[in-house]
Amino acid sequence: MTDLPPTPRGRALPIFSHRIVAIDGAARAGVMHTAHGAVDTPAFMPVGTAGTVKAMTADAVRATGSAIVLGNTYHLMLRPGAERIARLGGLHRFMDWPSPILTDSGGFQVMSLAKLRKLDIDGVTFQSHLDGSTHRLTPVRSIEIQHQLDATITMVLDECTPFPASPEQAQTSMQLSMRWAEHSREAFVPRQGYALFGIVQGSIYPELREASARALTSIGFDGYAIGGLAIGEGQTTTFAVLDGTLPHLPPDAPRYLMGVGTPDDIIGAVQRGTDMFDCVIPTRAGRTARAYTSRGVFNLRNARFADDTLSLDPDCACPACARHSRAYLHHLFKAEEMLGPMLLTWHNLNYYQALMRDLRAAITVRRLDAFADGVRAGWAREEPT
Amino acid sequence: MTDLPPTPRGRALPIFSHRIVAIDGAARAGVMHTAHGAVDTPAFMPVGTAGTVKAMTADAVRATGSAIVLGNTYHLMLRPGAERIARLGGLHRFMDWPSPILTDSGGFQVMSLAKLRKLDIDGVTFQSHLDGSTHRLTPVRSIEIQHQLDATITMVLDECTPFPASPEQAQTSMQLSMRWAEHSREAFVPRQGYALFGIVQGSIYPELREASARALTSIGFDGYAIGGLAIGEGQTTTFAVLDGTLPHLPPDAPRYLMGVGTPDDIIGAVQRGTDMFDCVIPTRAGRTARAYTSRGVFNLRNARFADDTLSLDPDCACPACARHSRAYLHHLFKAEEMLGPMLLTWHNLNYYQALMRDLRAAITVRRLDAFADGVRAGWAREEPT
Repeated sequence: MTDLPPTPRGRALPIFSHRIVAIDGAARAGVMHTAHGAVDTPAFMPVGTAGTVKAMTADAVRATGSAIVLGNTYHLMLRPGAERIARLGGLHRFMDWPSPILTDSGGFQVMSLAKLRKLDIDGVTFQSHLDGSTHRLTPVRSIEIQHQLDATITMVLDECTPFPASPEQAQTSMQLSMRWAEHSREAFVPRQGYALFGIVQGSIYPELREASARALTSIGFDGYAIGGLAIGEGQTTTFAVLDGTLPHLPPDAPRYLMGVGTPDDIIGAVQRGTDMFDCVIPTRAGRTARAYTSRGVFNLRNARFADDTLSLDPDCACPACARHSRAYLHHLFKAEEMLGPMLLTWHNLNYYQALMRDLRAAITVRRLDAFADGVRAGWAREEPT
Repeated sequence: MTDLPPTPRGRALPIFSHRIVAIDGAARAGVMHTAHGAVDTPAFMPVGTAGTVKAMTADAVRATGSAIVLGNTYHLMLRPGAERIARLGGLHRFMDWPSPILTDSGGFQVMSLAKLRKLDIDGVTFQSHLDGSTHRLTPVRSIEIQHQLDATITMVLDECTPFPASPEQAQTSMQLSMRWAEHSREAFVPRQGYALFGIVQGSIYPELREASARALTSIGFDGYAIGGLAIGEGQTTTFAVLDGTLPHLPPDAPRYLMGVGTPDDIIGAVQRGTDMFDCVIPTRAGRTARAYTSRGVFNLRNARFADDTLSLDPDCACPACARHSRAYLHHLFKAEEMLGPMLLTWHNLNYYQALMRDLRAAITVRRLDAFADGVRAGWAREEPT
């Protein structure tokens, strides 16, 4: 590795840790300490694909209450390049986000976006969806790239087992991921306050999930992700897999459900003991006029909002809700003005982060189930569009 | 008129006025007092076409030092409709801009955007470029729409004489505009702190410009715009028309050069005694990677910026310059991320408004010409792209 960003210096870095501060049933509230600051859990991580949470300044992301964002290794390695970001001082400085960043391993996007991909036992070779150039991602290279990006939390390279998969396919795929997890662990350069997370695979099969959780625990990671979900299996199955997996993970380590989800998905997963989430839903929905609110989900393009003087969500204090009417937001989307996606992304992230804050508070006072019922009842207060 | 927005109440509204506070050669610095607050002149008005300055929140527009924005009657009358904006409380509330708003009359966009337009002596009939619906704009209707929008400054309906135009065409067109100016004056409902501006036409012909200025002065307006420029005639001609027109206008009334321009255009027009400007250049350029800076104009897509760790403009304190490198801005435009236009629009407006502030200060200390020379010399400090 030639190009590496500077490691934080000049102050005593905390050891990476996750301290559980309250428990309510299976749910936990905690604080994750990192080299780049603390994160209260359960935490939602906005997706900053290409070095920006789409349609948001870094200041605005912070203002929503986000404490950690996710960056995509696949996108950043192709453009502007991991070496370049390292030379420019790392991803934190590049995108003006001094707080924690988790990067994925690149494996998921290689399988969903890249062209002519070829998986072998040591890694995956693929062509960039941008210019057709050939690249290779192995566990060692993925870890190296994430180091170049200066990720606070690095994810092991894994194969996201497709859904559906037969038990045999799921086992072979999971075992490949466990092999790669070992390679990833060996390649990771420990730095104080930085973390490496393993990823549980095994599709919908409880015995495979348990075997995967035990294999990762025996390798030893700072946190454990549950991968291979939110890819079409449905919420009931997602929750069943969580119920069958989480008991086999170390109790204090952070548990991260990758790619999930709607507010309802997140509430259910928090009730089952999940600590971290990432998902494009609030940001992508914000660009397509879809609003997540305390009164349900609305499509702001709907004509019923053309003369609606109400605030989008009377319970929300974001700029879209505090300053404007639904009629104005409707107009912005009809007129295809950039301010529509800007304001609605801000709102959706603010709604998600307010929900996370309230979930943490409800766990602390051991009222999570009642709080969750109240939130779900609130969603029925207005007609959906 | 059935739907009218509420007129500001509950406080003593100032009489609309423009007080000249300093003079340097032909240039003037002043303060324009309005029902919606004060505006220091010379002033640049960002263009908020459809109820939003593109890619900017209202807070961000304010943060650039903008004191007044422009709204487009043509766009707003078609979508979301002037009656709707009136019902929703007026354009100030709709777009969260309590400060002054100037609206154009709609005439310019009818001629440049609408389909099947037909001009007659009383007005213009046209089809919407959005849905083909038929509309008619007369001086009376334009003034009514601007009242419904709650414009602080209303513009008379005029015909923007095309360039080039023969003396005969220019005279006929100017005389039609003067007839419409009278109709507009009669239709305007005076409200304390609100203003109606006339528009001088006459193409490039000094005697027509003088006749137009005298005609408008004899009708009597709160301010005077110079129209029919910045449509291809070139800066030398623009300045010659200004030199031939401004002496025939009342000395204290605000003078507004419509649709101008680049920083260099604005400096020259301020030196000649112009008080107000509007232009899409800083916002449109911001969406197309073109940066106006104290060191010249750059195209941020240029590969030379890919590894450039410098601030875009070391003399600027906007978020794009204070928080990010040119390399990051280059990446955002290459990746077609919305944050690129957002940050660069912010920067360009900030650059324009910092320039206006510095021009006002230079006039106050009677150092305008030396200051202008210094700004122009600064633009040569870096290679253009």
